[in-house]
Amino acid sequence: MSGGGIGQALGEIAFGADGLVPAIAQQHDTGEVLMVAWMNREAVEVTLAEGRACYWSRSRGRLWRKGESSGQVQRLVELRLDCDGDTILLLVDQTGVACHTGRRNCFFRAWRDGGWVEIAAPEIDPEALYGEQSSG
Amino acid sequence: MSGGGIGQALGEIAFGADGLVPAIAQQHDTGEVLMVAWMNREAVEVTLAEGRACYWSRSRGRLWRKGESSGQVQRLVELRLDCDGDTILLLVDQTGVACHTGRRNCFFRAWRDGGWVEIAAPEIDPEALYGEQSSG
Repeated sequence: MSGGGIGQALGEIAFGADGLVPAIAQQHDTGEVLMVAWMNREAVEVTLAEGRACYWSRSRGRLWRKGESSGQVQRLVELRLDCDGDTILLLVDQTGVACHTGRRNCFFRAWRDGGWVEIAAPEIDPEALYGEQSSG
Repeated sequence: MSGGGIGQALGEIAFGADGLVPAIAQQHDTGEVLMVAWMNREAVEVTLAEGRACYWSRSRGRLWRKGESSGQVQRLVELRLDCDGDTILLLVDQTGVACHTGRRNCFFRAWRDGGWVEIAAPEIDPEALYGEQSSG
Protein backbone atom coordinates (compact mmCIF):
# COMPACT_ATOMS: atom_id res chain seq x y z
CA MET A 1 0.00 0.00 0.00
CA SER A 2 1.54 3.31 -1.03
CA GLY A 3 2.10 6.28 1.22
CA GLY A 4 0.00 8.33 -1.16
CA GLY A 5 -2.89 5.96 -0.59
CA ILE A 6 -2.64 6.33 3.14
CA GLY A 7 -2.44 10.10 2.66
CA GLN A 8 -5.78 9.91 0.88
CA ALA A 9 -7.19 7.86 3.71
CA LEU A 10 -6.08 10.44 6.25
CA GLY A 11 -7.55 13.32 4.27
CA GLU A 12 -11.05 11.96 4.73
CA ILE A 13 -10.76 11.61 8.48
CA ALA A 14 -12.04 14.54 10.55
CA PHE A 15 -9.68 14.47 13.52
CA GLY A 16 -10.90 16.51 16.48
CA ALA A 17 -9.30 19.60 17.95
CA ASP A 18 -7.09 17.28 20.00
CA GLY A 19 -6.03 15.44 16.85
CA LEU A 20 -7.93 12.31 17.78
CA VAL A 21 -10.94 10.30 16.67
CA PRO A 22 -12.58 7.41 18.52
CA ALA A 23 -12.00 3.99 17.02
CA ILE A 24 -14.18 0.97 17.68
CA ALA A 25 -12.60 -2.46 17.45
CA GLN A 26 -15.11 -5.11 16.39
CA GLN A 27 -14.40 -8.80 15.99
CA HIS A 28 -14.83 -9.24 12.25
CA ASP A 29 -16.68 -12.55 12.20
CA THR A 30 -18.86 -12.47 15.31
CA GLY A 31 -19.69 -8.76 15.43
CA GLU A 32 -18.63 -8.50 19.07
CA VAL A 33 -17.70 -4.95 20.02
CA LEU A 34 -14.36 -5.43 21.73
CA MET A 35 -13.24 -1.98 22.84
CA VAL A 36 -13.02 1.68 21.96
CA ALA A 37 -9.77 3.60 21.89
CA TRP A 38 -8.41 6.71 20.16
CA MET A 39 -6.39 7.22 17.02
CA ASN A 40 -4.37 10.14 15.71
CA ARG A 41 -3.00 10.45 12.17
CA GLU A 42 0.08 8.42 12.93
CA ALA A 43 -1.93 5.65 14.56
CA VAL A 44 -4.02 5.33 11.39
CA GLU A 45 -0.89 5.28 9.25
CA VAL A 46 0.70 2.58 11.37
CA THR A 47 -2.51 0.53 11.48
CA LEU A 48 -2.84 0.54 7.69
CA ALA A 49 0.87 0.02 7.06
CA GLU A 50 1.34 -2.80 9.56
CA GLY A 51 -2.08 -4.45 9.30
CA ARG A 52 -2.62 -4.43 13.05
CA ALA A 53 -4.47 -2.01 15.30
CA CYS A 54 -2.40 0.84 16.65
CA TYR A 55 -3.97 3.49 18.87
CA TRP A 56 -2.95 6.69 20.58
CA SER A 57 -2.80 6.15 24.31
CA ARG A 58 -4.14 9.30 25.95
CA SER A 59 -2.92 8.22 29.38
CA ARG A 60 0.60 7.43 28.22
CA GLY A 61 0.79 10.11 25.54
CA ARG A 62 2.26 7.81 22.90
CA LEU A 63 1.40 5.34 20.17
CA TRP A 64 0.15 2.04 21.47
CA ARG A 65 0.34 -1.01 19.26
CA LYS A 66 -2.41 -3.13 20.77
CA GLY A 67 -0.84 -6.22 22.23
CA GLU A 68 2.68 -4.82 22.42
CA SER A 69 2.85 -5.73 26.12
CA SER A 70 0.18 -8.39 26.43
CA GLY A 71 0.53 -10.21 23.11
CA GLN A 72 -3.21 -9.69 22.59
CA VAL A 73 -2.80 -8.35 19.05
CA GLN A 74 -5.62 -7.18 16.80
CA ARG A 75 -4.99 -8.14 13.18
CA LEU A 76 -6.66 -5.63 10.89
CA VAL A 77 -9.30 -7.07 8.59
CA GLU A 78 -10.80 -3.77 7.40
CA LEU A 79 -10.81 -0.10 8.36
CA ARG A 80 -14.10 1.74 7.90
CA LEU A 81 -15.08 5.38 8.31
CA ASP A 82 -18.45 6.86 9.22
CA CYS A 83 -20.51 9.42 7.32
CA ASP A 84 -19.05 12.41 9.14
CA GLY A 85 -15.52 11.04 9.00
CA ASP A 86 -15.08 11.43 12.74
CA THR A 87 -15.32 7.83 13.90
CA ILE A 88 -13.36 4.79 12.76
CA LEU A 89 -14.55 1.20 12.84
CA LEU A 90 -11.82 -1.42 12.83
CA LEU A 91 -12.83 -4.93 11.89
CA VAL A 92 -10.17 -7.04 13.54
CA ASP A 93 -9.23 -10.54 14.45
CA GLN A 94 -8.51 -10.39 18.17
CA THR A 95 -5.88 -12.66 19.64
CA GLY A 96 -6.99 -13.70 23.11
CA VAL A 97 -8.77 -10.94 25.00
CA ALA A 98 -9.23 -7.25 24.27
CA CYS A 99 -9.73 -5.94 27.80
CA HIS A 100 -6.93 -5.23 30.24
CA THR A 101 -9.05 -6.92 32.93
CA GLY A 102 -8.61 -10.21 31.09
CA ARG A 103 -12.12 -10.21 29.69
CA ARG A 104 -12.80 -10.81 26.04
CA ASN A 105 -14.30 -7.33 25.60
CA CYS A 106 -14.44 -4.15 27.66
CA PHE A 107 -18.23 -3.81 27.82
CA PHE A 108 -18.84 -6.25 30.64
CA ARG A 109 -21.12 -4.05 32.75
CA ALA A 110 -24.81 -4.03 31.84
CA TRP A 111 -27.53 -1.89 33.36
CA ARG A 112 -30.24 -4.32 34.47
CA ASP A 113 -33.13 -3.79 36.89
CA GLY A 114 -31.71 -0.59 38.29
CA GLY A 115 -28.12 -1.68 38.86
CA TRP A 116 -24.88 -2.61 37.13
CA VAL A 117 -24.37 -6.32 36.51
CA GLU A 118 -21.09 -7.90 35.43
CA ILE A 119 -22.02 -10.08 32.49
CA ALA A 120 -18.59 -11.53 31.70
CA ALA A 121 -15.78 -12.94 33.79
CA PRO A 122 -12.06 -12.64 33.10
CA GLU A 123 -10.75 -15.38 30.83
CA ILE A 124 -7.12 -14.66 31.63
CA ASP A 125 -5.46 -13.38 34.78
CA PRO A 126 -4.23 -9.85 34.01
CA GLU A 127 -1.04 -10.74 35.84
CA ALA A 128 -0.37 -13.28 33.14
CA LEU A 129 -0.84 -10.60 30.48
CA TYR A 130 1.08 -7.73 31.99
CA GLY A 131 3.05 -9.10 34.90
CA GLU A 132 3.60 -6.35 37.44
CA GLN A 133 1.95 -3.71 35.20
CA SER A 134 -1.46 -5.31 35.63
CA SER A 135 -3.28 -2.08 36.47
CA GLY A 136 -2.96 -0.73 32.94
CA MET B 1 -36.96 2.34 37.21
CA SER B 2 -36.23 4.68 40.10
CA GLY B 3 -34.39 7.96 39.86
CA GLY B 4 -31.97 6.64 42.47
CA GLY B 5 -31.11 3.75 40.21
CA ILE B 6 -30.32 6.04 37.34
CA GLY B 7 -28.25 8.15 39.70
CA GLN B 8 -26.19 5.06 40.44
CA ALA B 9 -25.79 4.43 36.74
CA LEU B 10 -24.53 7.94 36.18
CA GLY B 11 -22.03 7.72 39.03
CA GLU B 12 -20.11 4.98 37.25
CA ILE B 13 -19.80 6.89 34.00
CA ALA B 14 -16.60 8.89 33.53
CA PHE B 15 -17.84 11.84 31.51
CA GLY B 16 -15.05 13.81 29.82
CA ALA B 17 -14.05 17.40 30.52
CA ASP B 18 -16.76 18.45 28.05
CA GLY B 19 -19.35 16.41 29.94
CA LEU B 20 -19.65 13.83 27.17
CA VAL B 21 -18.82 10.21 26.46
CA PRO B 22 -19.00 8.43 23.11
CA ALA B 23 -21.87 5.99 22.73
CA ILE B 24 -21.95 3.18 20.18
CA ALA B 25 -25.33 2.02 18.93
CA GLN B 26 -25.27 -1.64 17.94
CA GLN B 27 -28.19 -3.60 16.49
CA HIS B 28 -28.88 -6.06 19.29
CA ASP B 29 -29.54 -9.19 17.25
CA THR B 30 -27.21 -8.89 14.27
CA GLY B 31 -24.25 -7.15 15.91
CA GLU B 32 -24.17 -4.46 13.22
CA VAL B 33 -22.49 -1.29 14.46
CA LEU B 34 -24.98 1.38 13.44
CA MET B 35 -23.46 4.69 14.54
CA VAL B 36 -21.53 6.53 17.20
CA ALA B 37 -22.83 9.65 18.90
CA TRP B 38 -22.27 11.44 22.21
CA MET B 39 -24.11 11.37 25.52
CA ASN B 40 -24.11 13.68 28.51
CA ARG B 41 -25.67 12.90 31.89
CA GLU B 42 -29.10 14.01 30.82
CA ALA B 43 -28.97 11.95 27.63
CA VAL B 44 -28.22 8.85 29.69
CA GLU B 45 -31.07 9.65 32.08
CA VAL B 46 -33.52 10.12 29.23
CA THR B 47 -32.34 6.98 27.45
CA LEU B 48 -32.84 4.84 30.55
CA ALA B 49 -36.10 6.50 31.54
CA GLU B 50 -37.71 6.39 28.10
CA GLY B 51 -36.20 3.17 26.79
CA ARG B 52 -35.01 4.77 23.56
CA ALA B 53 -31.66 6.23 22.55
CA CYS B 54 -31.18 9.90 23.31
CA TYR B 55 -27.89 11.62 22.52
CA TRP B 56 -26.33 15.03 22.94
CA SER B 57 -26.04 16.73 19.59
CA ARG B 58 -22.74 18.61 19.57
CA SER B 59 -23.65 20.48 16.39
CA ARG B 60 -27.06 21.60 17.67
CA GLY B 61 -26.07 21.94 21.31
CA ARG B 62 -29.14 20.13 22.62
CA LEU B 63 -30.56 16.73 23.46
CA TRP B 64 -31.39 14.65 20.43
CA ARG B 65 -33.86 11.83 20.72
CA LYS B 66 -32.79 9.64 17.85
CA GLY B 67 -35.61 9.54 15.33
CA GLU B 68 -37.40 12.66 16.60
CA SER B 69 -37.34 14.12 13.08
CA SER B 70 -36.90 11.05 10.92
CA GLY B 71 -38.95 8.49 12.82
CA GLN B 72 -35.89 6.21 12.78
CA VAL B 73 -36.08 5.44 16.49
CA GLN B 74 -33.67 3.22 18.42
CA ARG B 75 -35.47 1.17 21.07
CA LEU B 76 -33.10 0.44 23.94
CA VAL B 77 -32.45 -3.23 24.59
CA GLU B 78 -29.52 -2.80 26.98
CA LEU B 79 -27.03 -0.15 28.06
CA ARG B 80 -23.50 -1.34 28.74
CA LEU B 81 -20.41 0.41 30.06
CA ASP B 82 -16.77 -0.32 29.40
CA CYS B 83 -14.00 -1.08 31.88
CA ASP B 84 -12.88 2.55 32.21
CA GLY B 85 -16.44 3.85 32.32
CA ASP B 86 -15.77 6.29 29.50
CA THR B 87 -17.60 4.60 26.61
CA ILE B 88 -21.19 3.42 26.41
CA LEU B 89 -22.49 0.61 24.25
CA LEU B 90 -26.20 0.74 23.46
CA LEU B 91 -27.80 -2.44 22.23
CA VAL B 92 -30.79 -1.21 20.30
CA ASP B 93 -33.49 -2.22 17.91
CA GLN B 94 -33.19 0.23 15.03
CA THR B 95 -36.31 1.27 13.17
CA GLY B 96 -35.42 1.77 9.52
CA VAL B 97 -31.98 3.26 9.01
CA ALA B 98 -29.49 4.79 11.43
CA CYS B 99 -27.58 7.08 9.06
CA HIS B 100 -28.79 10.51 7.96
CA THR B 101 -27.68 9.57 4.43
CA GLY B 102 -30.42 6.94 4.34
CA ARG B 103 -28.02 4.05 4.80
CA ARG B 104 -28.61 1.39 7.39
CA ASN B 105 -25.41 2.29 9.26
CA CYS B 106 -22.93 5.14 9.16
CA PHE B 107 -19.82 3.06 8.44
CA PHE B 108 -20.31 2.69 4.70
CA ARG B 109 -16.78 3.68 3.63
CA ALA B 110 -14.15 0.93 3.66
CA TRP B 111 -10.46 1.30 2.95
CA ARG B 112 -9.68 -1.26 0.24
CA ASP B 113 -6.69 -1.49 -2.10
CA GLY B 114 -5.50 2.01 -1.33
CA GLY B 115 -8.78 3.89 -1.63
CA TRP B 116 -12.16 4.45 -0.02
CA VAL B 117 -14.97 2.26 -1.32
CA GLU B 118 -18.64 2.80 -0.57
CA ILE B 119 -19.89 -0.58 0.56
CA ALA B 120 -23.55 0.28 1.15
CA ALA B 121 -26.12 2.28 -0.75
CA PRO B 122 -28.92 4.40 0.73
CA GLU B 123 -32.05 2.41 1.46
CA ILE B 124 -34.21 5.50 1.89
CA ASP B 125 -34.02 8.92 0.26
CA PRO B 126 -32.92 11.37 2.98
CA GLU B 127 -35.53 13.76 1.60
CA ALA B 128 -38.16 11.29 2.68
CA LEU B 129 -36.68 11.20 6.18
CA TYR B 130 -36.06 14.88 6.78
CA GLY B 131 -37.84 16.80 4.04
CA GLU B 132 -36.02 20.07 3.42
CA GLN B 133 -33.60 19.46 6.33
CA SER B 134 -31.91 16.62 4.45
CA SER B 135 -28.36 17.82 5.06
CA GLY B 136 -28.51 17.00 8.74
